[in-house]
Amino acid sequence: MLVDDRSSAVSLPELPLLGVLPGTGGLTRVSDKRHVRRDLADYFSTKAEGVGGKKAVQWRLVDEAVPRPRWDETVAERAAELAVRSSRPQDATGVALTEMSKTRDGDAITYEHVEARLSRDAGKVDISVKGPQTSPPASLAQARSAEFWPLAVTRELDDLILDLRTNETELGTWVFRTQGDPANVLAHDELLLQNTNDWFGNEVLHYLKRTLRRLDVTSRSLIAVIEPGSCFAGSLLELALAADRSFQLAGVFEEQDPDADPATITLGEANLGPLTMSNGLTRLQARFWGDEAGYEAAAKRRNEALEAEDAADLGLVTFAPDDIDWDEEIRIAVEERASFSPDALSGLEANYRFAGPETMETKIFGRLSAWQNWIFNRPSAAGPEGALRRFGTGQRAVFDRKRV
Amino acid sequence: MLVDDRSSAVSLPELPLLGVLPGTGGLTRVSDKRHVRRDLADYFSTKAEGVGGKKAVQWRLVDEAVPRPRWDETVAERAAELAVRSSRPQDATGVALTEMSKTRDGDAITYEHVEARLSRDAGKVDISVKGPQTSPPASLAQARSAEFWPLAVTRELDDLILDLRTNETELGTWVFRTQGDPANVLAHDELLLQNTNDWFGNEVLHYLKRTLRRLDVTSRSLIAVIEPGSCFAGSLLELALAADRSFQLAGVFEEQDPDADPATITLGEANLGPLTMSNGLTRLQARFWGDEAGYEAAAKRRNEALEAEDAADLGLVTFAPDDIDWDEEIRIAVEERASFSPDALSGLEANYRFAGPETMETKIFGRLSAWQNWIFNRPSAAGPEGALRRFGTGQRAVFDRKRV
Repeated sequence: MLVDDRSSAVSLPELPLLGVLPGTGGLTRVSDKRHVRRDLADYFSTKAEGVGGKKAVQWRLVDEAVPRPRWDETVAERAAELAVRSSRPQDATGVALTEMSKTRDGDAITYEHVEARLSRDAGKVDISVKGPQTSPPASLAQARSAEFWPLAVTRELDDLILDLRTNETELGTWVFRTQGDPANVLAHDELLLQNTNDWFGNEVLHYLKRTLRRLDVTSRSLIAVIEPGSCFAGSLLELALAADRSFQLAGVFEEQDPDADPATITLGEANLGPLTMSNGLTRLQARFWGDEAGYEAAAKRRNEALEAEDAADLGLVTFAPDDIDWDEEIRIAVEERASFSPDALSGLEANYRFAGPETMETKIFGRLSAWQNWIFNRPSAAGPEGALRRFGTGQRAVFDRKRV
Repeated sequence: MLVDDRSSAVSLPELPLLGVLPGTGGLTRVSDKRHVRRDLADYFSTKAEGVGGKKAVQWRLVDEAVPRPRWDETVAERAAELAVRSSRPQDATGVALTEMSKTRDGDAITYEHVEARLSRDAGKVDISVKGPQTSPPASLAQARSAEFWPLAVTRELDDLILDLRTNETELGTWVFRTQGDPANVLAHDELLLQNTNDWFGNEVLHYLKRTLRRLDVTSRSLIAVIEPGSCFAGSLLELALAADRSFQLAGVFEEQDPDADPATITLGEANLGPLTMSNGLTRLQARFWGDEAGYEAAAKRRNEALEAEDAADLGLVTFAPDDIDWDEEIRIAVEERASFSPDALSGLEANYRFAGPETMETKIFGRLSAWQNWIFNRPSAAGPEGALRRFGTGQRAVFDRKRV
């Protein structure tokens, strides 16, 4: 809704004023979300003063233009209309998102279920995620709290992803491990998936989905390391499926713990539908994009604890080294990663993570981010005489007129 | 097919050796064309030495690995198998693509049907395309020559696009005009579209389709100017539909030629299917993406000569100024364009031209180009200590370790 007066307007002034593109998918929101016709969108995006009134409605930039005298009343009407459509129960009590226990201490970030060790020399972070210690409550009603493992672990992961992305830009490789009983993970998933029409179950599931999507668009190399005692099952297996490479130990560590059970991974219902990527595919579908038979063969083995050789044969993990090669293979993978151009790795990973279809969301968080980064880095924007540097100085920007 | 010996391999060594991404959609070809699993693709693209033999087949990088002794024989077999599947007639005589008449003379590039005037101060090129002078031959059999207008004009346009893209990088705006009788254009289109199962008709149509696609991915601002005496109809209307903005004169130029017929545009069958963009949509579909009613309203008026007000109301042109405002509006549009950041304009135009779905082709020529430009321009590649600069010097590249 836009106030319909002589001065109010919607505008994307970035291109004319700053020489860059509108952030967070501005262009895609105009074309793919609002469906503004391409030539009108072009005109709109070059007018710093923007478009107001009835023209903004005709061009689909806003839903309605409302004169100031009717503004408050119309806002209240529209809000009431939308509120009626919500599925949120009117009488439910919310869950308090209490403060997480987090310590950030030199080279360690520690939460209750998640732990990160930062290796600045190696340019990597080792991230360990603990599965639930117990089986889930008997019903979701008993689980409504910030302590509920799927909610608690998701909050911690989300916080860690944002912390590392923002504050540790030179740690280019994240190595994921898990620890715990796969059965407990699967049981928690099941409780959640059986209660998706409950507001709490629904919120937790979508929060997990969004957090995993955040991982997909993270410009870091992701490696999953699957060892005895781990619980890469169901929702936690998504961490391995989100990774650029995964290693699963064939057999056990003969010297440390010869009697351990070998590492397994388990596909569960959580991997077969609800936790889609931004492109609308599950990570399992994206993995087998263009290989229907491979997908079917893997999906058929759901709920089965798969040891390394099986998992590698099915294409669910990348490599299955044994005890003798294990440390060396992982060390080389991490060291090699640190030797490559971070820019080129970001491009490589973003492309391979998103094979297949695109959606408005991938265009905003994938393709457009690339354009934006490119444009923000070019001399016309960021150079000493660029529009970003000169904005507000009274000096005109000088552009490199070459198109590339 | 790959020779199966100890030394032959396929490889994308760009990332490990040069710090950039494989060119012309290398990554998309691996993921979306060859359907190589994403983690294997990741591994493959970081190994400068590549992958050979049976592993290259298992990973889908090649179709088969053939031992050297059976090489010649197997190549001949596969070639024969493919040749049998061709629809090309065995007894047809080809059409000689005789040399085009082209003069390039300071600020003018002149062909038989296409003419370009270069304005270096204004940063623009005025491109004029002549429609056919006569109606088409009675049958396609009589049209089989390089003189056939659809073939001749397409060759000239194609050559001009490549010439300007390569040699005139500072001329950022191309202004398209046409000249001729719309009926002759539509009649030539019809002859072509009625003969798409003829090898010659098929080749000419696809060549036109590819040339228009080349225009879509050209990093120049495209403006169509529709005046009395023009022939923006059918295949030539695609030039206006490909443009970022279009202007159609309402009425006539009162002082120059008061008795002229007003400018019209005409949608023909050529606009409603055969000339798709890289994203699989026609330019008309892309224009009305998300506005089915708008599309239907426009398509219903096919074969009707539409004057400016009608065309603007239907959303087929951007602006319909009259005689009094005409020169000023176009001058401002072109001057304004020259004042903006070329980089940001390239990003803007590429996004708005390709609303909606993506295909392997748009990923290669759209999204991936963006990533590549970005990565090629970053200090890790192109900076004084970057991998591109240092390759072959014996010095290791120094990377900016920050991910952005």
